[in-house]
Amino acid sequence: MSDKSASGAPLRLGIAGLGTVGIGVVKIIRRQAQLLKARAGRPVVITAVSARSKDKDRGIDLSGYAWEDDAVDLAKRDDVDVFVELMGGHDGPAKASVEAAIAAGKDIVTANKALLAHHGQELALAAEDAGVRLRYEAAVAGGIPVIKALTEGLAGNDITRVMGVMNGTCNYILTQMQATGRGYNALFEECAELGYLEADPNLDVGGIDAGHKLAILSSIAFGTQINFDAVELEGIQRIQLEDIEHAAEMGFRIKLLGVAQMTGRGLEQRMSPCLVPEASPLGQLEGGTNMVVIEGDAIEQVVLRGPGAGEGPTASAVMGDVMDIARGFALPTFGQPARTLRPVNGAKAAKPAPYYIRMTLLDKPGALAKVAAVLGDAAVSIDRMRQISHEKERAPVLIVTHKCTRDALDTALSGLAKTGVVDGEPVAIRIEKV
Amino acid sequence: MSDKSASGAPLRLGIAGLGTVGIGVVKIIRRQAQLLKARAGRPVVITAVSARSKDKDRGIDLSGYAWEDDAVDLAKRDDVDVFVELMGGHDGPAKASVEAAIAAGKDIVTANKALLAHHGQELALAAEDAGVRLRYEAAVAGGIPVIKALTEGLAGNDITRVMGVMNGTCNYILTQMQATGRGYNALFEECAELGYLEADPNLDVGGIDAGHKLAILSSIAFGTQINFDAVELEGIQRIQLEDIEHAAEMGFRIKLLGVAQMTGRGLEQRMSPCLVPEASPLGQLEGGTNMVVIEGDAIEQVVLRGPGAGEGPTASAVMGDVMDIARGFALPTFGQPARTLRPVNGAKAAKPAPYYIRMTLLDKPGALAKVAAVLGDAAVSIDRMRQISHEKERAPVLIVTHKCTRDALDTALSGLAKTGVVDGEPVAIRIEKV
Repeated sequence: MSDKSASGAPLRLGIAGLGTVGIGVVKIIRRQAQLLKARAGRPVVITAVSARSKDKDRGIDLSGYAWEDDAVDLAKRDDVDVFVELMGGHDGPAKASVEAAIAAGKDIVTANKALLAHHGQELALAAEDAGVRLRYEAAVAGGIPVIKALTEGLAGNDITRVMGVMNGTCNYILTQMQATGRGYNALFEECAELGYLEADPNLDVGGIDAGHKLAILSSIAFGTQINFDAVELEGIQRIQLEDIEHAAEMGFRIKLLGVAQMTGRGLEQRMSPCLVPEASPLGQLEGGTNMVVIEGDAIEQVVLRGPGAGEGPTASAVMGDVMDIARGFALPTFGQPARTLRPVNGAKAAKPAPYYIRMTLLDKPGALAKVAAVLGDAAVSIDRMRQISHEKERAPVLIVTHKCTRDALDTALSGLAKTGVVDGEPVAIRIEKV
Repeated sequence: MSDKSASGAPLRLGIAGLGTVGIGVVKIIRRQAQLLKARAGRPVVITAVSARSKDKDRGIDLSGYAWEDDAVDLAKRDDVDVFVELMGGHDGPAKASVEAAIAAGKDIVTANKALLAHHGQELALAAEDAGVRLRYEAAVAGGIPVIKALTEGLAGNDITRVMGVMNGTCNYILTQMQATGRGYNALFEECAELGYLEADPNLDVGGIDAGHKLAILSSIAFGTQINFDAVELEGIQRIQLEDIEHAAEMGFRIKLLGVAQMTGRGLEQRMSPCLVPEASPLGQLEGGTNMVVIEGDAIEQVVLRGPGAGEGPTASAVMGDVMDIARGFALPTFGQPARTLRPVNGAKAAKPAPYYIRMTLLDKPGALAKVAAVLGDAAVSIDRMRQISHEKERAPVLIVTHKCTRDALDTALSGLAKTGVVDGEPVAIRIEKV
């Protein structure tokens, strides 16, 4: 960390990765050179760039910057103060080049949630030992300055809960199901065609990408070592149109919602479909917009909402980090020294909640009674039950339970499988108090 | 600015003002001592306090702190690193003690929006000349870390518009009128009894308090010298229940909304009742909650929502500033050096907008035709007009105009006064695109 912030010397960036976000950063630095200098007290410039293909037409002239084929070489350049990693991927060139940058004493700005979710603790330790900054505002919730809010603005709070809708593609699919009555599969195909999905779509619809983001927020919020493996993950693939519709009838929306909270049994981190009240800020969130809700002992609740992706918004977040570095701000990667972060195991959702359950009953005598008995034995009491129609030999049944623990629910679900009257696996969705 | 952030030396606060917020800060520092130390890398402690009455029971033992009767003396103490000004008022002891703190080389954290709105530029110049920090997160929108978001997180953006609902009392009155059908006067009385109003209620219902906050945000957003006198102010006192009801019928809510944007004619700053779509985040804001909407060339739009007042939330914002100072962050008061901020005059709302107009017509022949003619002559064209009932000799008339400039509207309003058919002064409320 070469802190020349007070000297007025230019801050020199090396940008690795020239996709949407990388080009967005280049554009901001060109367009707003004067503004950035006025605010940072020094010029912010790009000296070198790197990407997979030098010859690709990116719609912008990059000939004024030195080119490196290898991001690792870029990270080591003498004329680079800040290594800006916008390649993605939790291993390979991204990891290698960030490690090289740390070893070379460069500050780092990255948008790479996967890298942090998998290697955040070791990278933070290395960065702090080397005295360099590792910043990643763009890794979580796109343009929303949520890392800054949590790490700095709310630093006086004992954070009690963090929630978020942080995958725009999932929220787009779910809100379009609601709005258009189209099914999950049709919307999944549409997203694939529109380029809304990651190369591995399971990163989106399986909740992995959003889970990475939640793991990062958890670490800051609770002073714990990042532990992505401890995130309970469930994607949106099993949500059917009828779930959306029945949720709506009860005054709810279905969201892929991340929830992290410290419990007596450990750190609970969940990324899964939840029912939230349609009148709540989370319930009203449409399309690709992201939302993060932060609760603390002093602040009560703050809600941040903004674009979760896209060239401008993500580049805005990258630039927030760059400007902090230009201004000479320094703090540990996760808000407190990585060496002081506590290791945590995952804790299954501990706090009782009501659940929505949808299952298909076979037309056998006493089927409904068997279901009720299994739930009762597991101490899951029924608030409302509805048998939708009685077509052919199968009847969909919807149940809303009273509050129960996840353990009790899981006991009930495995009991249902043994009754011989339930066709397939029931869908159970938590009703979250937000 | 004695930057011992790297040394681990305690950061020593002197707190002037022991009302709700001051006591809230004391409580956080006691309750979260360990957390604050882990995050700041050094202890945060209180060494001395000051308030009007030493003997008042504040429900908390303050005997461990040195007492000063005079805030100016507190600001000068050798054992104080940061002067925390929580007294309020734009002159008198608040101003004198902040000036004394600057002269004594102390960093300052304040929640005083009036002080900054009236003296922000001179205080910022003095602080920057003295090399001390002047921070004020708690001055705007309570617990929401909006100053940080705007000054730091979005520092890569050319900000295009800032909007906000930033007076909880006004929003409480307006949403309660909507929810309960009670009139403005009854709710004003209720707020007075509940202690929701400032000693001078015009600060709240006249829009002055919210105007102070808007002036602060404008300065950061547009790199301009703070100019509260240039804020077009209009309070909520003339909003009647029928305005609320008619707005609702058209799908709108009425909010005391601040809007700041740079126009070809200068900086437009307005704090006035506006109609906003009920389905928008601003339209859905209920009760005392605050919301700030920030738009920039890269970020598109970010919405921040949270408690606008109260012991915990406001103290949380104060602590955000304290923690930044403890961590050694330094930046100019308004995000760029005060000497580089441009002076601005006010610009009357330049962009055309539709307006809602309510007036009372006297029962005279051709009255409505006269109104229509005056509007037409002023180039204000009518989208919808409605005459509500015809009771006695007066009939309320509601008009929604097509887009027109504020100048054209003002011409029309003064023309209406001369027709002899309009009773009293019409109420005109801008319909804001949010």
